[in-house]
Amino acid sequence: MGEALKGLKRTMMCGEPRESHVGQKITVMGWAQRKRNLGGLVFIDLRDRTGLLQVVFGEAINKEAFEKSDLVKPEFCIAVTGELVMREAANDHLPTGKVELKGAEIKILSESETPPIYIKENLDAAENVRLKYRYLDLRRPDMQKILMIRHKTTKIVRDFLDENGFLEMETPMLTKSTPEGARDYLVPSRNFPGKFYALPQSPQIFKQLLMVSGYDRYFQIVKCFRDEDLRANRQPEFTQIDCEMSFVEEDDIIAINERLIQRIFKEVKGVDVSLPIRRMPYSEAMDKYGSDKPDLRFGMEIKNISEAVADTEFAVFKGALENGGSVRCVVAENCASMGRKQVDKLGEFVKTYKAKGLAWIAYKSEEEIKSPIAKFFSEEQLKSLIEAAGAKVGDLILIVADKDEVVLQSLGALRLELAKQLEILKDNNNYEFVWITDFPLFEYDEEENRYVAKHHPFTSPKDEDLELLETAPEKARAKAYDIVLNGEELGGGSIRIHDSETQERMFKALGFTQESAWERFGFLLQAFKYGPPPHGGIAYGLDRLVMFLAGTDNIKDVIAFPKNQNAYCPMSEAPNVVDLKQLNELGIAIKEDQKEE
Amino acid sequence: MGEALKGLKRTMMCGEPRESHVGQKITVMGWAQRKRNLGGLVFIDLRDRTGLLQVVFGEAINKEAFEKSDLVKPEFCIAVTGELVMREAANDHLPTGKVELKGAEIKILSESETPPIYIKENLDAAENVRLKYRYLDLRRPDMQKILMIRHKTTKIVRDFLDENGFLEMETPMLTKSTPEGARDYLVPSRNFPGKFYALPQSPQIFKQLLMVSGYDRYFQIVKCFRDEDLRANRQPEFTQIDCEMSFVEEDDIIAINERLIQRIFKEVKGVDVSLPIRRMPYSEAMDKYGSDKPDLRFGMEIKNISEAVADTEFAVFKGALENGGSVRCVVAENCASMGRKQVDKLGEFVKTYKAKGLAWIAYKSEEEIKSPIAKFFSEEQLKSLIEAAGAKVGDLILIVADKDEVVLQSLGALRLELAKQLEILKDNNNYEFVWITDFPLFEYDEEENRYVAKHHPFTSPKDEDLELLETAPEKARAKAYDIVLNGEELGGGSIRIHDSETQERMFKALGFTQESAWERFGFLLQAFKYGPPPHGGIAYGLDRLVMFLAGTDNIKDVIAFPKNQNAYCPMSEAPNVVDLKQLNELGIAIKEDQKEE
Repeated sequence: MGEALKGLKRTMMCGEPRESHVGQKITVMGWAQRKRNLGGLVFIDLRDRTGLLQVVFGEAINKEAFEKSDLVKPEFCIAVTGELVMREAANDHLPTGKVELKGAEIKILSESETPPIYIKENLDAAENVRLKYRYLDLRRPDMQKILMIRHKTTKIVRDFLDENGFLEMETPMLTKSTPEGARDYLVPSRNFPGKFYALPQSPQIFKQLLMVSGYDRYFQIVKCFRDEDLRANRQPEFTQIDCEMSFVEEDDIIAINERLIQRIFKEVKGVDVSLPIRRMPYSEAMDKYGSDKPDLRFGMEIKNISEAVADTEFAVFKGALENGGSVRCVVAENCASMGRKQVDKLGEFVKTYKAKGLAWIAYKSEEEIKSPIAKFFSEEQLKSLIEAAGAKVGDLILIVADKDEVVLQSLGALRLELAKQLEILKDNNNYEFVWITDFPLFEYDEEENRYVAKHHPFTSPKDEDLELLETAPEKARAKAYDIVLNGEELGGGSIRIHDSETQERMFKALGFTQESAWERFGFLLQAFKYGPPPHGGIAYGLDRLVMFLAGTDNIKDVIAFPKNQNAYCPMSEAPNVVDLKQLNELGIAIKEDQKEE
Repeated sequence: MGEALKGLKRTMMCGEPRESHVGQKITVMGWAQRKRNLGGLVFIDLRDRTGLLQVVFGEAINKEAFEKSDLVKPEFCIAVTGELVMREAANDHLPTGKVELKGAEIKILSESETPPIYIKENLDAAENVRLKYRYLDLRRPDMQKILMIRHKTTKIVRDFLDENGFLEMETPMLTKSTPEGARDYLVPSRNFPGKFYALPQSPQIFKQLLMVSGYDRYFQIVKCFRDEDLRANRQPEFTQIDCEMSFVEEDDIIAINERLIQRIFKEVKGVDVSLPIRRMPYSEAMDKYGSDKPDLRFGMEIKNISEAVADTEFAVFKGALENGGSVRCVVAENCASMGRKQVDKLGEFVKTYKAKGLAWIAYKSEEEIKSPIAKFFSEEQLKSLIEAAGAKVGDLILIVADKDEVVLQSLGALRLELAKQLEILKDNNNYEFVWITDFPLFEYDEEENRYVAKHHPFTSPKDEDLELLETAPEKARAKAYDIVLNGEELGGGSIRIHDSETQERMFKALGFTQESAWERFGFLLQAFKYGPPPHGGIAYGLDRLVMFLAGTDNIKDVIAFPKNQNAYCPMSEAPNVVDLKQLNELGIAIKEDQKEE
């Protein structure tokens, strides 16, 4: 057991002392980062969340404190009182490096065993060990910095939205399962055995109801849940910045949200985002970048060369065109001399995106064009292909021919892969924002053999596309918008349907019977009968946003207590077995084949 | 389907227009509160969350708008553009009552069926109807005002805590079941069939781990869950303002929290809370008020008259004293003439608190003392009893004799009941805050036949009571404090144990084996091995706090989408049945006897 504070007060944080404080008697408290014995003195680097301060103990300063300080080991928690003095040899790496504390009194508040992981920046320990001892991992200054950025970000968001008339309102966590979208986490009910609550995947319906109720501008920073197989950078519970506004159209929501984004990036990163942020229709993003979240930090746009190759006898191109597909390419600048093996690997790469292969043309010089498919083209055809591709001497043209979907997806991915391999983004510190607009309302789900909502079933069709709901749903566009940064989606939203007639047509287009739509969403359809206002909103993934702001590509770095890839917490060992009594009260049983021996 | 905005922008909220705006062309949007046809004109009271504005339509203003306005019915959602003019007859009840809007253009944004409940203040509709049509109930101005107070309160809390160095940090919702305390809500896990997460009853352990991790000052406004039988003013999910600080003692936490309370009550209510808030040890609160959350807006303190009646032959008093109990009373001022029936009812009342009966003495005048038990006392004994009770002529003395626990509980409840019956608190707008301190560490659980933690098992004993853990746990006091306002607990907290040795002694006193303690709380005990700082914290019930600030005694008024008494939501119909496929994936089954036909 350690010593008690007994009235001792901290007067300064470890990261604060400067030359101007020299001569003051101060008390600091924190953890011993390291201890050195040197020249008959004891030096301790004392750490708290604000930084490090060197503390020195010596017989001449205070004998008792000196002797006690020698008992200190790494990660002991201590309190030190003494005079702040100038340091003989300044440490320029530390903000407090010009001063040190002469330890006249020391309390050992608690001792520490040798920690199983090092408390240092850029730790390279196994993830499961870090997660098991998360409370030690969270002591690392880089983790603390990230979680302070997270706090700062949410504070800025709340201040901005409050200034702009948004009310933070809580929506229920124990809600109803609506099996449209991802898999729900269920919560058995004791009062209604055999019935279940669901944890919300988003507060979508509730925030729309708040608009029906006249709250005008709503927001919430809120936990959401999806019981999906976890890929990297997915967590079973994640946090959303969720907004909704009434009496607005797309432009209004975009305008206020870019001011929010501007504020966040200015205050957290010191980065100026100039407004308005550019906008790009979905179709253009797909055409040029093969993605609805294009990375605009570099060019290498996809070019359609279908016309230039329309007359070719090359079977692969011809077949693609005859089947309604296309022939498109990206141009790798100055890569005409890329080795055959490397090009072959790119061919393997596009196959993972369902492309059947990758044709290439190395435009080595005006005279020398090297390509396995050159023989299928006249010189003139080759020239017009090169022109259509926009290639210059020294470039490598990489071509895929197939259905549009496959062509665009594979070339979009290839574009990013090339940027990585060619280190095009090295030292690129740009923040390239873009609003993607005019999304399709539906996408076809091959598995379910029906249309599903591209965003969600409450998204409003464009006014001019309303009649397409019944005639050609695949052509209908939505009043939807995503905000994309450097190839990642930060958030997205839409203007919502706000009348029950259109909402019912939407459900019908999604394959719901009127009965099943009412069974699931009846309360929303009912609410729409009582003067709903035009409304729309947006939701941001807070975790992803903080990843950008903190410069990490691991979602676990921005969450204090994350789960691992199996949705398991190695620290608390959740999920875990529970008492049979608990299950009996809930009226459920574990299925026989699942029971542990 | 209603008309679209098509670029029309709102320029003002309904509650904003004043004389200074007269002459301006404005556009407002909202709901028709009511419509009147009068003198060839149409008057509509237009409502949004800021208030009401009178809009007038006439043939002379704009014929088309006039005709369209006559189609409007209550709760239609409309947009009106026109000139703001002075009103002929001002309405002093409305902030906008001096002006009105001449409707030159109107858009009917959406129509409304006749709503099933009235949209008005102080609605007296059946609760389940209100909950079923919650989106309409939430349109009522009094509900909107409350939820705006809730938003404002959380904003003030966040601003204050941020200014004082607290970081808002999120803790997990999917956590581990720790069956100590209330019943957990469980969440089946798909990856680990047969295992369960639990929804948190509070982030207690996680916030302590954040202190171990060096975050120094943490807070969170967070949903917590308890699957308990719902009494009035309990909800299965509720919101907590949760704080924790390192390197502090009781006084530090109390000091900063009183400043927070002062700020909230000043900014939301305009009420000045003078600091420091008084403090009262638990034992004094129990002695004087029979409650650990005393209402200090009035006196009527409980008086111990055991000594004064020590010599009596009255069997009830004698028996109580001989059994180690006591004889105590409260004095109802000027109630000596209370009718016999009313006194008998008070007797019935105390029986619900396990008192066997209520003795009474009506001190009608110096000469006349009326009491069914007078015969057991000499005149002198009666006088000294009256003196010990502190009664004056005209007062009624109400006495209970029993074990201390029963005496104090029943008289504490009687005191509050009398205050209600006598309307002592009528027109009392005081805010009487008090910190209750020095709580017992344990209380004895008759059902479980063991000691349980009065607060929770992580609460630190007083330094001087540490050894009582093993020798006389019932006497050990805790470093715990509750903040009480007008007889209700707003929040409570404690200094925590911060070494694994004391924590293990605590678990032992609670009847845990070392093995079972480690099984449940091993990660906390392990964390305490690595230099934990002294720390403590507090948690407020946000719902209850907002009830105070909004002046409502119904918790459902301060939650946008509450559950009813059965933890059921009549609007969304949650909880509900789910697909068998979902249960199969989770490896659970509904027990046969629970299945619906």
